[in-house]
Amino acid sequence: LETIQKITIIGAGSWATALVKIFSESNVQISWYLRKANDVSYVNEHGRNPGYLSHTMLPMSYIHPTSDIEEAIDFSDTVLFVVPSAYLPSTLSTIPDGIMDNKWVLSSIKGMIPGASISASEFLNQKLGLKKDRHAIIAGPCHAEEVAMERKTYVTVSSLNEEFAGAIAASLRPSYIQTILNNDPMGVEYAAILKNIIGLACGIAHGLNYGDNFQAVLVSNSFIEIRQFLELLDPRARDLSESAYFGDLLVTAFSPFSRNRHFGQMIGRGYSVQAAQLQMRMVAEGYYAVEGIYNLSRKLGIEMPVTSAIYRILYNFISPFLEFRLLEKKFK
Amino acid sequence: LETIQKITIIGAGSWATALVKIFSESNVQISWYLRKANDVSYVNEHGRNPGYLSHTMLPMSYIHPTSDIEEAIDFSDTVLFVVPSAYLPSTLSTIPDGIMDNKWVLSSIKGMIPGASISASEFLNQKLGLKKDRHAIIAGPCHAEEVAMERKTYVTVSSLNEEFAGAIAASLRPSYIQTILNNDPMGVEYAAILKNIIGLACGIAHGLNYGDNFQAVLVSNSFIEIRQFLELLDPRARDLSESAYFGDLLVTAFSPFSRNRHFGQMIGRGYSVQAAQLQMRMVAEGYYAVEGIYNLSRKLGIEMPVTSAIYRILYNFISPFLEFRLLEKKFK
Repeated sequence: LETIQKITIIGAGSWATALVKIFSESNVQISWYLRKANDVSYVNEHGRNPGYLSHTMLPMSYIHPTSDIEEAIDFSDTVLFVVPSAYLPSTLSTIPDGIMDNKWVLSSIKGMIPGASISASEFLNQKLGLKKDRHAIIAGPCHAEEVAMERKTYVTVSSLNEEFAGAIAASLRPSYIQTILNNDPMGVEYAAILKNIIGLACGIAHGLNYGDNFQAVLVSNSFIEIRQFLELLDPRARDLSESAYFGDLLVTAFSPFSRNRHFGQMIGRGYSVQAAQLQMRMVAEGYYAVEGIYNLSRKLGIEMPVTSAIYRILYNFISPFLEFRLLEKKFK
Repeated sequence: LETIQKITIIGAGSWATALVKIFSESNVQISWYLRKANDVSYVNEHGRNPGYLSHTMLPMSYIHPTSDIEEAIDFSDTVLFVVPSAYLPSTLSTIPDGIMDNKWVLSSIKGMIPGASISASEFLNQKLGLKKDRHAIIAGPCHAEEVAMERKTYVTVSSLNEEFAGAIAASLRPSYIQTILNNDPMGVEYAAILKNIIGLACGIAHGLNYGDNFQAVLVSNSFIEIRQFLELLDPRARDLSESAYFGDLLVTAFSPFSRNRHFGQMIGRGYSVQAAQLQMRMVAEGYYAVEGIYNLSRKLGIEMPVTSAIYRILYNFISPFLEFRLLEKKFK
């Protein structure tokens, strides 16, 4: 398993499209599953994804789009899931029994399964009966939009199986990509989930007209909250200052590309959750993350002031103005 | 020493003006030393500082501007120094011997003394023969511009003398200000100095057209560099995730108000150091910080890849493009 020659990529969003671009430019043959037959025709005809990163030309000699999930999975030994966490259960339910046996599985989903309080990786492991040494995750810090622009981007590949992670990392070769290896997939995945909550919180603060001085304090306090949560959820030595954890947080909290931040901003300005979701067209992963992490924090018996405040704003419809006034007093 | 009634503030820049605003709105009587007699007349006549935050109306019934430093210092028992670190030596040299004896000293200077590789506080302590328990620092995370706009801002007061820090904190009372107490003035001061280097580095990266993905990795790696430096310089237990350290870094690295970031951006775009300084009118503290910290890092025998790269760019005129290409490979 030196580098991979073929891969199946399941997902049609912007990050899926960015990964299709990266793998295809690394000369990996790709079976690309897009749910809608229309999208498959469009990609075949135009060499671009009509819905996301739609200006990005993809090298079609490496890309085989299909809306037949069984055909897609049969194509290779390595299957990469990159769909919004909310759609992962329905996606898995369309996969015939048994065809995922003995596959290597990658996932690049930074979210919680709605209503289940488990991460995408945990869900995949449960549903596919996957062994942990046949699974790796691909993480940030990055925005798909900057991959499309070919701006320098670091991609983290994390697995308990270091050989597998190494093979994947070695298969990501465009000059604008640099890979980071990591052996703490649970920590990296949860840090990515939690950072979406911070991105959302920063957006709400911005929508409420707080400035940079406040945002710095909000992020500091949220970072401490993340650290305490991870220490309880999965205790092990990890340096949260590394790019895979901390960098990922920064790119979401401060970047104008962040969907979670954008969603939060609308909430802060007084949009209802429904109106904000309608207007965005995309799913803000942070919305489901808040519910899952909030429930987990209660199970673990840990105080998470920022997460709890965002939970009450989004799910109990408490005024963001009021919740942030209360948060102000708790910060240090 | 419950709260203070009177204070001497030495400095005419934007952060000095912000502190004059905060103390005066807390009903503290202020003797405000401005070096130029013209500025004193202007403040007296218009109630605004002509040079910095010039739209901010100051409550003049609490403010007594003067260009006589002896008169300013005689006014109160507490003297706050808030001048650029580069001007601190010349400012101190104008103070007659003996009149600072038995004063309480505050400083809010986030920089290194040019050519000396010591911080502003260390310089004050040496020159004034100051006892450490008569000294406190006022730190961020904050930009003066947002204080002027009265946006929610957290101010850190740090001293080895907790009673003194408490008295100062209790004297900062506007509703938009919240205070954080801290007893690690050296750590807070050096974190503030180091963050200016990161701000500068982020600016250079931006000027070189790197995006948010790269910036996140740059800040993560810089943060690890700061941590290792502080652990060697002054080992003690401290949580760098707290606002006083980490928040201060964030506000500089990511805010458009940051002078260091702005200065760095011009360097990244190909301005010479001199041209960038001329165009900015303000001193970017990071410029002196880089030299001081670089020299200290060599004394301490610690590798600081980001600081060293910025040093070579600013002082040895190595191409920023080249230095960042080399940094790219070192990051993780």
